[in-house]
Amino acid sequence: VNPVAVDLMGGDSGPAVIVEGVKSALDTMGGSVIAVGSHAACELFAGDARVETVVASEEILMSDDPASAPRRKRDASMVVGATLLKEQRASSFITFGNSGAAMATALVKVGRIRGVARPAITIELPVPGTTSTVLLDAGANTEVTPAWLHQFAVMGSVYTAARLGIEHPRVGLLSIGEEPGKGNTLVKETYYLLAEEPSIKFVGNVEGRDIMSDRVDVVVTDGFTGNVVLKSLEGAAHLFANAVLGALGAGDDGVLDLALPKLLPLWNQMTPDDTGAAALLGVNGLFLIGHGASNARAVASAVRNARQLAEAKVVETIRRLEGSTGE
Amino acid sequence: VNPVAVDLMGGDSGPAVIVEGVKSALDTMGGSVIAVGSHAACELFAGDARVETVVASEEILMSDDPASAPRRKRDASMVVGATLLKEQRASSFITFGNSGAAMATALVKVGRIRGVARPAITIELPVPGTTSTVLLDAGANTEVTPAWLHQFAVMGSVYTAARLGIEHPRVGLLSIGEEPGKGNTLVKETYYLLAEEPSIKFVGNVEGRDIMSDRVDVVVTDGFTGNVVLKSLEGAAHLFANAVLGALGAGDDGVLDLALPKLLPLWNQMTPDDTGAAALLGVNGLFLIGHGASNARAVASAVRNARQLAEAKVVETIRRLEGSTGE
Repeated sequence: VNPVAVDLMGGDSGPAVIVEGVKSALDTMGGSVIAVGSHAACELFAGDARVETVVASEEILMSDDPASAPRRKRDASMVVGATLLKEQRASSFITFGNSGAAMATALVKVGRIRGVARPAITIELPVPGTTSTVLLDAGANTEVTPAWLHQFAVMGSVYTAARLGIEHPRVGLLSIGEEPGKGNTLVKETYYLLAEEPSIKFVGNVEGRDIMSDRVDVVVTDGFTGNVVLKSLEGAAHLFANAVLGALGAGDDGVLDLALPKLLPLWNQMTPDDTGAAALLGVNGLFLIGHGASNARAVASAVRNARQLAEAKVVETIRRLEGSTGE
Repeated sequence: VNPVAVDLMGGDSGPAVIVEGVKSALDTMGGSVIAVGSHAACELFAGDARVETVVASEEILMSDDPASAPRRKRDASMVVGATLLKEQRASSFITFGNSGAAMATALVKVGRIRGVARPAITIELPVPGTTSTVLLDAGANTEVTPAWLHQFAVMGSVYTAARLGIEHPRVGLLSIGEEPGKGNTLVKETYYLLAEEPSIKFVGNVEGRDIMSDRVDVVVTDGFTGNVVLKSLEGAAHLFANAVLGALGAGDDGVLDLALPKLLPLWNQMTPDDTGAAALLGVNGLFLIGHGASNARAVASAVRNARQLAEAKVVETIRRLEGSTGE
């Protein structure tokens, strides 16, 4: 496959962290990367033959209006990278910048897969002790239709098969009870669409408690509920980790020192560093949006995952399943 | 205030656990209780002058159809207890039985406060290190209107002031961004109703991550989102606790034995035993629904909390704020 393209600009910690992550990914996976950024940022790869650099004269900032940014800043690194994806010089593109602007750029510069109504933000939630749970939509569409959720289910299943190596991922519809009649009107109508979809293994409604469990691989929901759940779980993980450390550290009796080395692997597993980036499924190319706060380890994961998704032909499979010939 | 009425039937572990919890509550808070149940269950209070027993010849089971149960089983303990509340012989009523049937019984036998469109299930989420966060609706109404959410906000604020002793609880509207324009149509329209409501301290939109924090006291949302979030957090707490114990216990080096006494208070704080029951706010009387799996400690908490809410005149205050004279 063609190289992964990476936006060096827009991360909270500046280009150096992203450069470090890219180098780390190349060290382990081999291959090559196209890096897009300012002249100074590109210079950080000087002498590294594995990296093709493309200098962009502009940068989309967190303060830029997301919707108009891709049109106002045509030579921004994010826009240049999206164009590399559009022209298929890159097999995927990852940005760690303004996520609203990234969504707008994906739609304006790359466009949707023909037949897909709306792209969905697709994230992996790490579940200690078992494989991650893939959740979509995590925030792109606050209001959806049953037909859109149907497409999210198909796209999420394709993604999960590729990323987690599960041949027939279990797809669940997020609701407030397991029976088909439980939930709101949207869920009740979507249930029957998913039950009749031959390309997925639909396991019926799932509840909130099933997300962090091994009962389901792909959880489908609207972008409002998905975003609220995602952030609720992030908040709970943060609070919980701090509360455990606080409880173990109270009394200053050395218990925390004994416990910490045993807890660190769990803490690492619970952070999203191994996932690296959210995929904007439904876009006509592998467009990934990483968290602005990503560290080098998260950047490296994102690059490796992007190549894995490209090799597994996720976009091509979605294109075929949505009955389209591409745009 | 009049005594708290308690349904002895319907709990997963049988009447003895509920009886034990009631006695424990009476030991610490004094006062009296009306207990409703089978002859055998009532006999467990023999000789206890603090408890008035009312024998009911029927019992609503988990297998009973919720909607029709209160009409089909007119002498069920749940129905008899609700009638005690309706007739104001009891200041509140708590059941640990079939929660769907409990909602139906509350509506059929006690009715709504005049002017309240829909009752909302109101729960307290324990937040380690700070006061609980009150969440409503946790599942009674899967589809709502801005006007209903407005009423939920007012009722939740009254409840939280009484239960947590916060004079002006911070009320937040659950959304996917803090700015007023963020969210779905429902949230955007509700925002302006809450901003203009003089009886609450509205702090604007809150996100999922704010639920398990000290940034907000009352979180208002529809029953679909609320139920999904509640169960997601319950599932995460369960998984995290097990993962931490598993990590500390690995290697069998004694670290878990040292850590456990320090973690137990945290584990206890995170379980809902201190909350005891969800309140069905909007019903014309204090109707509380406890979890079927409640242990004696949870039952005792529910009884104490019920009296606290009755003494604080929660229902009377909601009645006044909703501009009603009662039914």
